[in-house]
Amino acid sequence: MDYYSKQITKLIAELSTLPGIGAKSAQRLAFHILDMPTEEVEDLANAMVSARKGVHYCKQCYTLTDDEICPICSNPARDQKVIMVVEDTKDLAAYEKTGKYEGVYHVLHGAISPMQGIGPADIKLKELMQRLQGDVDEVIIATNSSLEGETTAMYISKLIKPTGIKVSRIASGVPVGGDLEYIDEVTLLRALEGRTEL
Amino acid sequence: MDYYSKQITKLIAELSTLPGIGAKSAQRLAFHILDMPTEEVEDLANAMVSARKGVHYCKQCYTLTDDEICPICSNPARDQKVIMVVEDTKDLAAYEKTGKYEGVYHVLHGAISPMQGIGPADIKLKELMQRLQGDVDEVIIATNSSLEGETTAMYISKLIKPTGIKVSRIASGVPVGGDLEYIDEVTLLRALEGRTEL
Repeated sequence: MDYYSKQITKLIAELSTLPGIGAKSAQRLAFHILDMPTEEVEDLANAMVSARKGVHYCKQCYTLTDDEICPICSNPARDQKVIMVVEDTKDLAAYEKTGKYEGVYHVLHGAISPMQGIGPADIKLKELMQRLQGDVDEVIIATNSSLEGETTAMYISKLIKPTGIKVSRIASGVPVGGDLEYIDEVTLLRALEGRTEL
Repeated sequence: MDYYSKQITKLIAELSTLPGIGAKSAQRLAFHILDMPTEEVEDLANAMVSARKGVHYCKQCYTLTDDEICPICSNPARDQKVIMVVEDTKDLAAYEKTGKYEGVYHVLHGAISPMQGIGPADIKLKELMQRLQGDVDEVIIATNSSLEGETTAMYISKLIKPTGIKVSRIASGVPVGGDLEYIDEVTLLRALEGRTEL
């Protein structure tokens, strides 16, 4: 790429290390940045660095936050006795967007994956068990519906069962608006197993 | 988006102003950045700011560069008498990737567009005409094959013709590997008009 001068080439190379940004997008982004007012570029750069530096885990639920305790955990309107266990902060955000969940969360930061060498000690599981020493009514396991997510859900439920705390798993099935014709067999079978009486 | 803490929300908002980065991608990028080592985030941020601050137009061809004269213009192996006129630095890069073009460039930074109120004075056209005072054999117009690109090509060729310098336009036609069935009619007609004897 010696047809661009040094700094442009470096910028394109840096941008193309980001996920989902290929060579073409990196180039388009670079030229967009070169075209932006300098102050806006500085704002963007500062947002990146200060978010990275300011962010850490919530002391209670381990979501990424720049507060000591995240806005959800510190919200008195949320039910602290219901804990939804998710794999990462993005999954938490997905449920928050529904606007209907009133409990709190626990972010594992991963899922158990023997294939990738990620064991129970590599995710925030010990921290979850510690939280369960407190006053908890229900743990809702909302790990992904993947092999790793299911393995993790199984593992957690086995761990919690002896404590007597209610453990539940979000339902698998046909997505709302989904056309059966295009749904894979495993999902179809899950939907059948999980059928509810009308 | 109050389910993320302030700095994360700000970072996502900043990232989603970039072209081709929607809400979902901005979120994915933000969490990737929060997961990167701090030094790497700083490198990326610095690359953006210093490229933006260091970059300006090449004094000869007006491409974006951080040198006084860009690497192409200052390369003694390039034929300074053949000038390819392109709309922007990305188009220059596209031709450089072919590795076959040995002349130099002139970057207009736009195309004439009466619809968008962009006239001949808004692009680096006066600067092109000034370059033609020197020793130039041919001007190859490689503006895009869009309405604006064609308008600009026409305008430039009319401007240059009286000087006696050879003016050419890159060919329009069916892309190599293109299937006629999927090519629009205008392109098919262009390809027919531009047919060459075998």
